[in-house]
Amino acid sequence: MFTCTLDSKSKTTLTDQLYLALRDEIAGGRMAPGARMPSKRQLAEHLRVSTATIEAAYGRLVSEGYCESRPRSGMYVAQALPGGSVAVPLQQTPVRWDFSTGAADAEHFPYATWARLMREVLSEQNTALLLSGDPQGSSGLRHEIAAMMHSLRGIDVSPESIVLGAGTEVLVTALASLLGRDKLFAVEDPGYSRVRRILVASGARIAPTPLLDGAIDVRALYTSGAGAAYVTPSHQFPLGGEMSMSQRTALLRWATETGGYILEDDYDSEFRFSGVSVPALRALDQGGQVIYMNTFARTLAPGLRLSFMALPDALIDRYRALHAACTVPGFEQETLRKFIGGGYLERHVARMRVIYRSRLLALERVVQTLGLGEVAPCEAGLYALLNVGGKTPAQELVPLAAHAGVKLTRLADHGVMQTGAESERVVLLGFAGMDECAIEEGLKALKKAWF
Amino acid sequence: MFTCTLDSKSKTTLTDQLYLALRDEIAGGRMAPGARMPSKRQLAEHLRVSTATIEAAYGRLVSEGYCESRPRSGMYVAQALPGGSVAVPLQQTPVRWDFSTGAADAEHFPYATWARLMREVLSEQNTALLLSGDPQGSSGLRHEIAAMMHSLRGIDVSPESIVLGAGTEVLVTALASLLGRDKLFAVEDPGYSRVRRILVASGARIAPTPLLDGAIDVRALYTSGAGAAYVTPSHQFPLGGEMSMSQRTALLRWATETGGYILEDDYDSEFRFSGVSVPALRALDQGGQVIYMNTFARTLAPGLRLSFMALPDALIDRYRALHAACTVPGFEQETLRKFIGGGYLERHVARMRVIYRSRLLALERVVQTLGLGEVAPCEAGLYALLNVGGKTPAQELVPLAAHAGVKLTRLADHGVMQTGAESERVVLLGFAGMDECAIEEGLKALKKAWF
Repeated sequence: MFTCTLDSKSKTTLTDQLYLALRDEIAGGRMAPGARMPSKRQLAEHLRVSTATIEAAYGRLVSEGYCESRPRSGMYVAQALPGGSVAVPLQQTPVRWDFSTGAADAEHFPYATWARLMREVLSEQNTALLLSGDPQGSSGLRHEIAAMMHSLRGIDVSPESIVLGAGTEVLVTALASLLGRDKLFAVEDPGYSRVRRILVASGARIAPTPLLDGAIDVRALYTSGAGAAYVTPSHQFPLGGEMSMSQRTALLRWATETGGYILEDDYDSEFRFSGVSVPALRALDQGGQVIYMNTFARTLAPGLRLSFMALPDALIDRYRALHAACTVPGFEQETLRKFIGGGYLERHVARMRVIYRSRLLALERVVQTLGLGEVAPCEAGLYALLNVGGKTPAQELVPLAAHAGVKLTRLADHGVMQTGAESERVVLLGFAGMDECAIEEGLKALKKAWF
Repeated sequence: MFTCTLDSKSKTTLTDQLYLALRDEIAGGRMAPGARMPSKRQLAEHLRVSTATIEAAYGRLVSEGYCESRPRSGMYVAQALPGGSVAVPLQQTPVRWDFSTGAADAEHFPYATWARLMREVLSEQNTALLLSGDPQGSSGLRHEIAAMMHSLRGIDVSPESIVLGAGTEVLVTALASLLGRDKLFAVEDPGYSRVRRILVASGARIAPTPLLDGAIDVRALYTSGAGAAYVTPSHQFPLGGEMSMSQRTALLRWATETGGYILEDDYDSEFRFSGVSVPALRALDQGGQVIYMNTFARTLAPGLRLSFMALPDALIDRYRALHAACTVPGFEQETLRKFIGGGYLERHVARMRVIYRSRLLALERVVQTLGLGEVAPCEAGLYALLNVGGKTPAQELVPLAAHAGVKLTRLADHGVMQTGAESERVVLLGFAGMDECAIEEGLKALKKAWF
């Protein structure tokens, strides 16, 4: 029978160790396609772990296509193994330390609470959740989101202005058609490359716009003739600055004077570690020009596919005319409604703020101890900027890291025109997906790779 | 305390009766905003129903924004009542009989099985489901969908070609950017107006194309210079015909000769009541020109937000480059995987085919008994075409029906240019959302309204 050594003291869970060992066995051809896997009970006895551990590892193998479960027969190695679908391509160096800014923490997700509330939703047998509900999302959930925006960010919006969507991509795509593709969309340069890509894929024209003192240059907005501006005022991505009050006033004046729309992406405003937070643009807006966007991908988990935006009143009817249904399933909407309403989201965010802060401190400490370079002061968000020391050529930083099992990006990768020589030696270190030990290990691996 | 008369013999469930009574009470202002609702136990005793009934009615009121539950305090009438979000605007005549083609049956949804599988997924604690998984959807689910397409429709596609999305709107929007907005998209006229709207909203140019013998006119495709054609070959919407083998061959030849893409929407191919089904275009395609689309909105429920498509190999890499994440939550994907893999989908479709067939027969019988008009022979799908008798002016048919509480559309509402005088007296009667009794009642209401 299949055998592997499981280390109960490892930071990797027993399930993950077993999953990885079995996956390697299957991908390496040592367990042949179509072969029957050991029964859960037998394998549990053999490896002296609980059947729950075996079940979880098998479940993951099945969900990734390595195995197939046949009812009343057992578990088999899949006939056709997954190709491009594997998270970690086996032929390359696997990612052991993920410092990318999109990495997320699944370990601290309040799984028990979420599962309990979802079970509660299922047991209520509310068949209305099975039908196409309101195109903006259920009214009850929108009330909770409005209350949450008030208490977390001091923004007062009516629940009627809120639109729920299955991720930022869905919402930004909808905005491109809602605002009209004839508009020029100004985007920050350097800025969030994913949103740039989504806008372009949606058929919108974009105008990469330089920053002035860390925020979008409003004079450039006037001259470019942009009809909308996508900005990240609470934590500019990737440079990390917070837009000052006078910069906000100037931007809002541009919107009022030109009739332009501001797309305010407040993507990680919840994770501010020091300093006083300036009011959101939406809270300062008098003229109905600001579209506020946020996501639960960072406060909860990306796999739940939950994002939302608050539209100006004038755009609501048009949104409802364009969209027949909300893209978020009824069961998820109702679970989230209970989750926010029960106060669990606020508690979770408060808890994660402490955890993330301690990860940031560990990162800063280890970088200093190792002499890896200079970490820019980080007051908010889930990544830090590291100005790399050493003599490694700038273009080698990412490939060498990848070869050592470390995933990261450079500041220069997020710019369009505005990429100076100095931004080529600055890397973004996302710390959301790893605990302090993994961060330390990853930084040591970087030191070895670069110095 | 609030009192209402509940009729345990009514076809409307006790929960729905109670929900409607309470909603009227709140919307009519007889229960004031902020007022405390009776406790579930008290109201259950008072009305002599189970607390489960009260809970379900309260749950629906909360999810629609009429009430708010405050932890450790109780249930209260909401401060701000839902406005545009109510499914049935109270000021208009409420829809009592929904004959629209998008209506769905939530009553026969295999709720117990779905809930059991989703609980199973939750208990497996597979935290990988919380992260951004594969942008096409999990490999395991795509294997199951490929197997299902083989067994239900005789189409062989590789799981690697399948893309999952949160509804048809999401997939059609993605196709507009995947194929390029420079392409002209031919759409059937008359045809599915929602897809026309989505394409236009996505920035694509459309060419409404007339039908010849019930299917898209291929000669018109050549002359229009279309680069893609959206078609419903297994059951043309709204005329209901099935594309013949020679029409399919001609359409495929057009695609091969011009390099055009065919978007095959197989939206209700599962519900065929008689006749032999012709192979799907995707099954006949040799040149990688056919994009196959389908949805679980009709085979399962629209509120689950589950649709999929199978792309030609040449488009997969581009799709993966454009999309960072799948729009369907991990928990839903995994529940659907278990549902299809356990054979429940096939069983459910077989069961619904019998139920829908009996509704169709009831509809045909009642129309004849009442002398309402002529029903066109219906071999597939979830609506029938009724050529209305009587002398009601054509433009009055829909408003008079609406006034009597009946929702429906006319054939003429689905055409762009191709709307003849005869199509103005043909209405579409969707029968998916009502049982035989409701269908009979609805048709009687129509008779009264029109004759």
